[in-house]
Amino acid sequence: MNHPDMKAVELSKAYRLLNHGPTVLVSAQYGQERNVMAAAWACALELTPAKVTVVLDKSTKTRQLVEQSGYFALQVPCFAQIDLVHQLGTISQFDHPSKLEECKTELFYQDDFPVPLVAGSLAWLICKVIPEPHNQQAHDLFIGSVVGAWADSRVFRDGHWHFQEASKDLRSLHYIAGGTFYLIGEEVKAK
Amino acid sequence: MNHPDMKAVELSKAYRLLNHGPTVLVSAQYGQERNVMAAAWACALELTPAKVTVVLDKSTKTRQLVEQSGYFALQVPCFAQIDLVHQLGTISQFDHPSKLEECKTELFYQDDFPVPLVAGSLAWLICKVIPEPHNQQAHDLFIGSVVGAWADSRVFRDGHWHFQEASKDLRSLHYIAGGTFYLIGEEVKAK
Repeated sequence: MNHPDMKAVELSKAYRLLNHGPTVLVSAQYGQERNVMAAAWACALELTPAKVTVVLDKSTKTRQLVEQSGYFALQVPCFAQIDLVHQLGTISQFDHPSKLEECKTELFYQDDFPVPLVAGSLAWLICKVIPEPHNQQAHDLFIGSVVGAWADSRVFRDGHWHFQEASKDLRSLHYIAGGTFYLIGEEVKAK
Repeated sequence: MNHPDMKAVELSKAYRLLNHGPTVLVSAQYGQERNVMAAAWACALELTPAKVTVVLDKSTKTRQLVEQSGYFALQVPCFAQIDLVHQLGTISQFDHPSKLEECKTELFYQDDFPVPLVAGSLAWLICKVIPEPHNQQAHDLFIGSVVGAWADSRVFRDGHWHFQEASKDLRSLHYIAGGTFYLIGEEVKAK
């Protein structure tokens, strides 16, 4: 299941996987239950030790699994996965218990972490929840400590994205609304 | 100073200005002091009432002004501003008291809000800090309630971005590291 191009990313460089603001997939598992949702509101929070934030609405099954297990994974999906991302973001497992199968979501595990990862993504960050009850209740805001990070070395290697050398299918997705996304575009440099 | 294409954005649509994950400029003022910094870690937090998060390091002058005044503005800069964004993100006003002049930062004010805005940006969100001392101290994380939002109608109108119809100069910037950014790219739609 695991992709041969999946390579570990130094945790001190993990923020770069999210720095350009991609829409992410959030996955979690508790016991036999597992789920994946899409989220546009994920962000790096600290360089070292690497931390991230993600907003998880109280109406989502994934949030329940994150609260129960204390873990979640963020993955950076790509254009090849656009329909999967949109479906995972619009269908709730509460209404569709077999959501993951309906969406043909291919999951795998990395090392011994208790979180399923979505195959075909560009990058994966496994995070341990830093419990912050006030943020979780008042703002739906979860903070995670990044405990493992990997990326597809065809597009992320040596601590940098290389989108311009890869196919369009491997561009990250940046959601707006109503099924409309932007792909990440051209690389440019400041003077 | 105000651009003729600057149009108000409904607060319920303000999240769309940040949803695709652009790097932002953060501006603030307290008394006669004002400053602007760049930040890659800003994110929508709530749809209605519109809220945002932004990470402001303790080493920054802008953070001091935000804490003193209780206000900040996020602006979405564009490719035409790439050198300005990089300079505002690397030079500290603590070391360079005339940073804003050195960087040729053109500021203006909108309505009666006590926050300077950066001319030439694609979008502006004026935010009132929701005080969260623990988040600010432990995580450098600030939460703001969006009290005013505007966008350049050449690229954002009717609640949507229209990057594909505008010039490259008007693409949003997505920072990685070391002066390297990506421009937002092609619009794509899920089935």
